[in-house]
Amino acid sequence: MDFKGTSILSTSQFSLEDVARLFQVAERMEPYAQRKKVTRVLEGAVLGNLFFEPSTRSRMSFEAAFGRLGGSVSNTTGFQFSSMAKGESVYDTSRVVAGYVDVLVVRHPVEGIVKEFADATHIPIINGGDGPGEHPTQALLDLYTIYKSFGMKMDLVHGKKVALVGDLKYGRTVHSLSKLLALFHDIEFFFVAPGELQMPDVFKDKVKGRGHKIHLVEDVREGIAEADIIYMTRIQQERFTTPEDAEKYRGTYSINRALYEKHCKPHAILMHPLPRDSRTGHSELDDDLNAHPNLAIFRQTDNGIPLRMALFALLLGVEDQVHQRERPANWYVPPRIGIYDN
Amino acid sequence: MDFKGTSILSTSQFSLEDVARLFQVAERMEPYAQRKKVTRVLEGAVLGNLFFEPSTRSRMSFEAAFGRLGGSVSNTTGFQFSSMAKGESVYDTSRVVAGYVDVLVVRHPVEGIVKEFADATHIPIINGGDGPGEHPTQALLDLYTIYKSFGMKMDLVHGKKVALVGDLKYGRTVHSLSKLLALFHDIEFFFVAPGELQMPDVFKDKVKGRGHKIHLVEDVREGIAEADIIYMTRIQQERFTTPEDAEKYRGTYSINRALYEKHCKPHAILMHPLPRDSRTGHSELDDDLNAHPNLAIFRQTDNGIPLRMALFALLLGVEDQVHQRERPANWYVPPRIGIYDN
Amino acid sequence: MDFKGTSILSTSQFSLEDVARLFQVAERMEPYAQRKKVTRVLEGAVLGNLFFEPSTRSRMSFEAAFGRLGGSVSNTTGFQFSSMAKGESVYDTSRVVAGYVDVLVVRHPVEGIVKEFADATHIPIINGGDGPGEHPTQALLDLYTIYKSFGMKMDLVHGKKVALVGDLKYGRTVHSLSKLLALFHDIEFFFVAPGELQMPDVFKDKVKGRGHKIHLVEDVREGIAEADIIYMTRIQQERFTTPEDAEKYRGTYSINRALYEKHCKPHAILMHPLPRDSRTGHSELDDDLNAHPNLAIFRQTDNGIPLRMALFALLLGVEDQVHQRERPANWYVPPRIGIYDN
Repeated sequence: MDFKGTSILSTSQFSLEDVARLFQVAERMEPYAQRKKVTRVLEGAVLGNLFFEPSTRSRMSFEAAFGRLGGSVSNTTGFQFSSMAKGESVYDTSRVVAGYVDVLVVRHPVEGIVKEFADATHIPIINGGDGPGEHPTQALLDLYTIYKSFGMKMDLVHGKKVALVGDLKYGRTVHSLSKLLALFHDIEFFFVAPGELQMPDVFKDKVKGRGHKIHLVEDVREGIAEADIIYMTRIQQERFTTPEDAEKYRGTYSINRALYEKHCKPHAILMHPLPRDSRTGHSELDDDLNAHPNLAIFRQTDNGIPLRMALFALLLGVEDQVHQRERPANWYVPPRIGIYDN
Repeated sequence: MDFKGTSILSTSQFSLEDVARLFQVAERMEPYAQRKKVTRVLEGAVLGNLFFEPSTRSRMSFEAAFGRLGGSVSNTTGFQFSSMAKGESVYDTSRVVAGYVDVLVVRHPVEGIVKEFADATHIPIINGGDGPGEHPTQALLDLYTIYKSFGMKMDLVHGKKVALVGDLKYGRTVHSLSKLLALFHDIEFFFVAPGELQMPDVFKDKVKGRGHKIHLVEDVREGIAEADIIYMTRIQQERFTTPEDAEKYRGTYSINRALYEKHCKPHAILMHPLPRDSRTGHSELDDDLNAHPNLAIFRQTDNGIPLRMALFALLLGVEDQVHQRERPANWYVPPRIGIYDN
Repeated sequence: MDFKGTSILSTSQFSLEDVARLFQVAERMEPYAQRKKVTRVLEGAVLGNLFFEPSTRSRMSFEAAFGRLGGSVSNTTGFQFSSMAKGESVYDTSRVVAGYVDVLVVRHPVEGIVKEFADATHIPIINGGDGPGEHPTQALLDLYTIYKSFGMKMDLVHGKKVALVGDLKYGRTVHSLSKLLALFHDIEFFFVAPGELQMPDVFKDKVKGRGHKIHLVEDVREGIAEADIIYMTRIQQERFTTPEDAEKYRGTYSINRALYEKHCKPHAILMHPLPRDSRTGHSELDDDLNAHPNLAIFRQTDNGIPLRMALFALLLGVEDQVHQRERPANWYVPPRIGIYDN
């Protein structure tokens, strides 16, 4: 696709070439994202963050990414959005705001509504999550994390075994990620979930239709044993049809260090879209894995910055000018961000 | 007036010469507002946006305008303003915040309170709407839109016929706009409203006192027939003294394409302060006018950027330095912002 | 201490040398804070303001200080913080956000929790107030105000007489300030409070342990008579054990102009952490003192800017580069900010 001026509404828009192009630019963004260099390529440009429901980490990530490119950011969160309460249409809201900013990120609880925003204007709009619909940059940063785990080579993602674990029925992130992974060749999918929360047929069919192997598994131990990549998600108790079922499965779809070391391949990376539930008995990934080098969850969130920088740069057509306005970062940056970072 | 360091509390502060001066600077701001050029003239300066009630579009517009001048913005919305809840005076709040920022926009539900903010400090303060009081930049951007519609010549505004339609009793925007229009010569006003929501005498007298002609009209068709400019406003149902009256007038003060084409002059421009109500049976300006080239509502909101940029530049005394710190915009901007833009 | 990369959690971390170093840098920041010059030394860096409870003035002050250094700011207020509501640990929240920003200010109602944020990452974290715990930058800006009042000479603070007045039991600011003042020599403290709200033993002992004289006083007139510095604080009515006590002391711990002129030394400066309660019968410092040149309350808030700029510069290791990226401020700044400023 021609990224310039394009709205990013769904992972379905991406071909494997598009992904490769995006990742190539993201790689170029790493020195700025890691605060080794400063670029001001988007100085003067304005991002509008329209968040009709709260999502702190997504908003901050988009904000920091745009800021690292030199642009400024105007945030609006749901609590503050007044005019739509007075009966204003999506069309009007979108057109008005598009007159103020150069690119818009919209987060909204209603599936499909971000497309309505995009239909009102020619400026690029990014879907920052539309309820049960899509959150394409989350899936892209997940895939970028996988790509970096395998030496930043697209070719090395082909043929991998991927376990998607947890709520596969309602989990927006696993739907989008499975679609992106299906762009590669010979992926072997392990869909690990309670029967009533298994992956919907539409996504299974999409994956199978591209020639990938899939396994439907209910037991976590079995589901993760062969995987190169284990992607955990939260199961909200209210997703189960009965409280008894919720109780039956409570704590089942979770991994701790002992279980990981006993059942997984030694190189298997552990992912999660975050937030993970850290309350006792709820955790999908136990805190005792925090120091484990294969725990990739913070690499995922860190990777949101270069990935989103790359997307902004491509949508605004400045991807080849980034280095022209760069200089070394002059402030102190610790060698490692997290206490357990490698 | 000498704009430098002056607080802008009311449209009453403006002479025709002040308006002309402001519009002259606004015109100079157009290339930056339209993202053709970037200026950094206010780099290092800080705007404080103090919004004690939500007003997303106004806040974003001030924010984007200041950002396009290179400055940074500190937003506070009503939900977050904690100290006044503890009994802090307006004087203290204003003086404290004035120590942090270079210019302050205050939005507050209480009429006259923004003046109290201005009385506490020597930094310039802009009234961003004080309840039923004033919202001077709204009236100024409305007038700037009219001025642009007539070839950016002040002289061509003289003698125009203007229909103000809807809630003229409580409508802050029509009060302020009528005061500004009254600065010109030989305006012919059509005040189109239900009897109980007609323009208050104080504004009628002001307009008449400057030699303009006014017509009080209840029927919309009649009121808009001769107008060069039709300015629609929303009538909140709760403004009527009885529910029966509200019901009687429901949908009466609205224009759709058929009505416009049948009753209006072909060049008559359609304005609205927005948000307009797009729910069926409520709309003041029907969606079927969205593609009409005379619908000026988004030109109004777009014009808020150069107008507010000009005001900031004048209040901070940088209006003649803007081009010194400019460069071409280097990112992609679509040729038209909205899908129906000309 | 080596400021670079250090988290600032408590005033207990500061030696007298550290304070002197910080104030030296703060003094260097004055021209930028006073908007005489502009520096862009932190251009490209990002501050995260994580406010789990509202504190408008603190947030704005950190934001403006970082902005005056050229950096950009990402704000999150408690209302918007969504992921922790879903059971996310402090460790996860802190590590994720630390991946987005270069320095983090955390405000939280729970004492000690900011340390947990700091334990998760190597980026510097500043305690912006942790409930009944500490708010170190408030105490530092208070001390900086005292230091400036005595000619910007550390030596001239030794030997001063300081009255701390009001709620000394729960008052976080007086605890921290007393610890900092105790770093000097021969301070004479007047702890002026109702018996049940007197200074806790731990702080009295700390002060006595460093050889300072203390007086416990219940009568305000007596407590402030000899003081060079009078630091007023608010007594929340609900702090008293009985409503009768609350009633008994209502309005007692307050100073107005008559009382000040009758009982205080002519040079005694009047301080307050703000907000002060300006409702009749509640005010700790009466409005009739607003024009008094010894009223230092807005000098305190103004001083928050250079003090916090200095702290950011030191934590990020740019304190010696500030002037390299400077230029004169080119916009209008009024000679005095407040109407009663000297």
